[in-house]
Amino acid sequence: MLRLSRFLPSTSRGVTDLKDVLWSGSLTFKHALSTSAANVDENASVKKYASYTVFKGKAALSISPILPLFTKVESGGSRVDRNGSVMLTFFPAVGQRKYDYTKKQLFALSPTEVGSLISLGPAESCEFFHDPSMKSSHEGQVKKSLSITPLGSDNGYFVNITVLNNVQKTNERLSVPVTKAEFAVMRTALSFALPHIMGWDQALSTHPQSTSTSASKPRFERPNPASEWDR
Amino acid sequence: MLRLSRFLPSTSRGVTDLKDVLWSGSLTFKHALSTSAANVDENASVKKYASYTVFKGKAALSISPILPLFTKVESGGSRVDRNGSVMLTFFPAVGQRKYDYTKKQLFALSPTEVGSLISLGPAESCEFFHDPSMKSSHEGQVKKSLSITPLGSDNGYFVNITVLNNVQKTNERLSVPVTKAEFAVMRTALSFALPHIMGWDQALSTHPQSTSTSASKPRFERPNPASEWDR
Amino acid sequence: MLRLSRFLPSTSRGVTDLKDVLWSGSLTFKHALSTSAANVDENASVKKYASYTVFKGKAALSISPILPLFTKVESGGSRVDRNGSVMLTFFPAVGQRKYDYTKKQLFALSPTEVGSLISLGPAESCEFFHDPSMKSSHEGQVKKSLSITPLGSDNGYFVNITVLNNVQKTNERLSVPVTKAEFAVMRTALSFALPHIMGWDQALSTHPQSTSTSASKPRFERPNPASEWDR
Amino acid sequence: MLRLSRFLPSTSRGVTDLKDVLWSGSLTFKHALSTSAANVDENASVKKYASYTVFKGKAALSISPILPLFTKVESGGSRVDRNGSVMLTFFPAVGQRKYDYTKKQLFALSPTEVGSLISLGPAESCEFFHDPSMKSSHEGQVKKSLSITPLGSDNGYFVNITVLNNVQKTNERLSVPVTKAEFAVMRTALSFALPHIMGWDQALSTHPQSTSTSASKPRFERPNPASEWDR
Repeated sequence: MLRLSRFLPSTSRGVTDLKDVLWSGSLTFKHALSTSAANVDENASVKKYASYTVFKGKAALSISPILPLFTKVESGGSRVDRNGSVMLTFFPAVGQRKYDYTKKQLFALSPTEVGSLISLGPAESCEFFHDPSMKSSHEGQVKKSLSITPLGSDNGYFVNITVLNNVQKTNERLSVPVTKAEFAVMRTALSFALPHIMGWDQALSTHPQSTSTSASKPRFERPNPASEWDR
Repeated sequence: MLRLSRFLPSTSRGVTDLKDVLWSGSLTFKHALSTSAANVDENASVKKYASYTVFKGKAALSISPILPLFTKVESGGSRVDRNGSVMLTFFPAVGQRKYDYTKKQLFALSPTEVGSLISLGPAESCEFFHDPSMKSSHEGQVKKSLSITPLGSDNGYFVNITVLNNVQKTNERLSVPVTKAEFAVMRTALSFALPHIMGWDQALSTHPQSTSTSASKPRFERPNPASEWDR
Repeated sequence: MLRLSRFLPSTSRGVTDLKDVLWSGSLTFKHALSTSAANVDENASVKKYASYTVFKGKAALSISPILPLFTKVESGGSRVDRNGSVMLTFFPAVGQRKYDYTKKQLFALSPTEVGSLISLGPAESCEFFHDPSMKSSHEGQVKKSLSITPLGSDNGYFVNITVLNNVQKTNERLSVPVTKAEFAVMRTALSFALPHIMGWDQALSTHPQSTSTSASKPRFERPNPASEWDR
Repeated sequence: MLRLSRFLPSTSRGVTDLKDVLWSGSLTFKHALSTSAANVDENASVKKYASYTVFKGKAALSISPILPLFTKVESGGSRVDRNGSVMLTFFPAVGQRKYDYTKKQLFALSPTEVGSLISLGPAESCEFFHDPSMKSSHEGQVKKSLSITPLGSDNGYFVNITVLNNVQKTNERLSVPVTKAEFAVMRTALSFALPHIMGWDQALSTHPQSTSTSASKPRFERPNPASEWDR
């Protein structure tokens, strides 16, 4: 038996501030994109953002999906150029229901890391390591790790992020306990997001014109494009 | 082995009446919205309503999804301003297959409460508490609770609502037994609805123009908007 | 370890015939609709049909989804008037890979029956009873039952239909063994179909114009249409 | 606890080459289609491709979904003419992070084979056999088999392909170990893809015009097209 309070009550100024913070975080991503790709600006007006956030005593954790990028292929269609991800954003608490968004820490889950998370058993744990400067001369300067460990008795998980900066000699750690119910929301949202961040929903969607075109043509036998025998 | 009778047989007037009742319930929500937001009236003509209802001896229970609300952000896109929910509506029975819709009781499940419900084990129970006047001067006057408790032997659950009104000195309680098959429908419908009431389907949907625009431009390296290293 | 042969090989005339049969079955439904509702004829050109069929020694079983019907409500939107279903069609075999479609038997699963099927444990069984003349003077003349019983050792299920006609004094029974892999396809397809046959996908879909309209208006506080406190 | 490296790091030329390889593989399918069906060329510009690839020491495995084909039916709608599939493509490694795409091996999973894979228990295995010349005079010349066997201790699976060519007297075998997390991605992607490769998403989608048309007409009783009693 558990008591669940309202999500993001509108009467709480601190939380409303936090919402703005969360979205200014999203805007940061978009601005980074815009600087080198002015051609996507016209789409910014239709872009929609959604997240799921849990607010706890020492920190808050917000997860939000990010779309894959497609690129044109010679034949005229397009393919996934870069997988999307699910961004985890941590905010340290600086008071009761107050969080400092200037100290946020980010961790972007790849499709396989999402797969690891959604298949986690009640007593299992997992840990991922990211190096923002991987394969550059700065490799090893900053090390991030995300660990998910069980709270025990099928009661949910601790989600921890550690950011070790060997240059600034800092080691920041934020930890958010996630209840079984909250983890069920995350698992369902991540399972829903997974085919989308890999672009499978777009590869499997049909285009109105293509259907009617092929339907209005006479039917004849054609080689099965799916066949493994075509090679 | 169980016998399942037809859902909403059209030959039963009592049940047909109830359907109208259910939808007048939905209209109540919309009217409440319209009074202060006339600008959404033009969309009322395309809005669609769906529910899932179980009719039992002492009461009926209907669940229906409600969309999240988006709001514009400075950059031109939009973000979830208020999560959607799944509304539970209880109707007391006043005769055989007759239900009194004027005495309906409502309970809106938040995303986390939906997560709690869909992750419920066969022998587990959960309980949620809502206070309509939370954080106002009337806080504590009315207390609602929803509990879901197992029927035993993996046979489904009892879904109970209790509304305690300390001002009117009333305490109403409605209870609906839900079979394992009916709960499977609810679990599947709630799991489907969850990403939608959080707006993730909209955040993960692509806009026809955005895809073709980026595809028709020359390909070049751009910073990954999903990267946690951009901060 | 199991050997799976190709689904619907195009070189088999008997099976190609059966495909036509399956779809003439679907057309039967549509014609029944058209006779009294000429206004839906213009949509017939875009209607799409899909199924999943297993061909076994004594009979074949095909399942296909059927959409719900919506009706206008006074406020201008629309609501589910009749739930969709998943139609089960049985064909008796009359030779090797030849099936007699004139002797097909139909059974339409309601949402709750779908819920029962998708939540079936490996050793569990279920049975549904339908009476086509329920609540009419012919009630009890024809009785249909569908039972799903385990093959044993987590190897799949027997799906059986029995049609007892007390007037014609006939009792037809068709039985199709379904492997664990085939049942996994059915379970996945039925779980996917369930929110759709209840209209939840349409209730949860957003309309392009409604989103942009509300986004282009100034933001202000409005009552939460989802709130259970509005009553 | 496991370490997951970045998926497809853009700084690795070998992997970038492989990406082109993967998509030239997809183009092969499309070209095969185009040679006999010029009428679909105009749709090539909107076709999107997505996959999920795991790169291991001795080989890489890529999976990607392929849409079903619809054909017009006499009544004006269309039905699935050929199911889609999920294509598995294996590439042998020829060095560190280098794979030889000219030696790729293909295996197209049917819906039932997908069902077998997504319902595989942690300790279970399955095997499929394909003969590209089935029911032709060349039947038996080439035999392909795909087997999926557990790595043990719930740690994932080995995915193996064997291609035996009795004419060329060759027997090629490629084997890719898939971690539990990677298999979770495959299971989720395949479960998502399954209703789509069978065309159920299209059969269950509604067309904007059909909805508004029926909504603008007066409501009357019409026969339920879903009813099994119509026959």
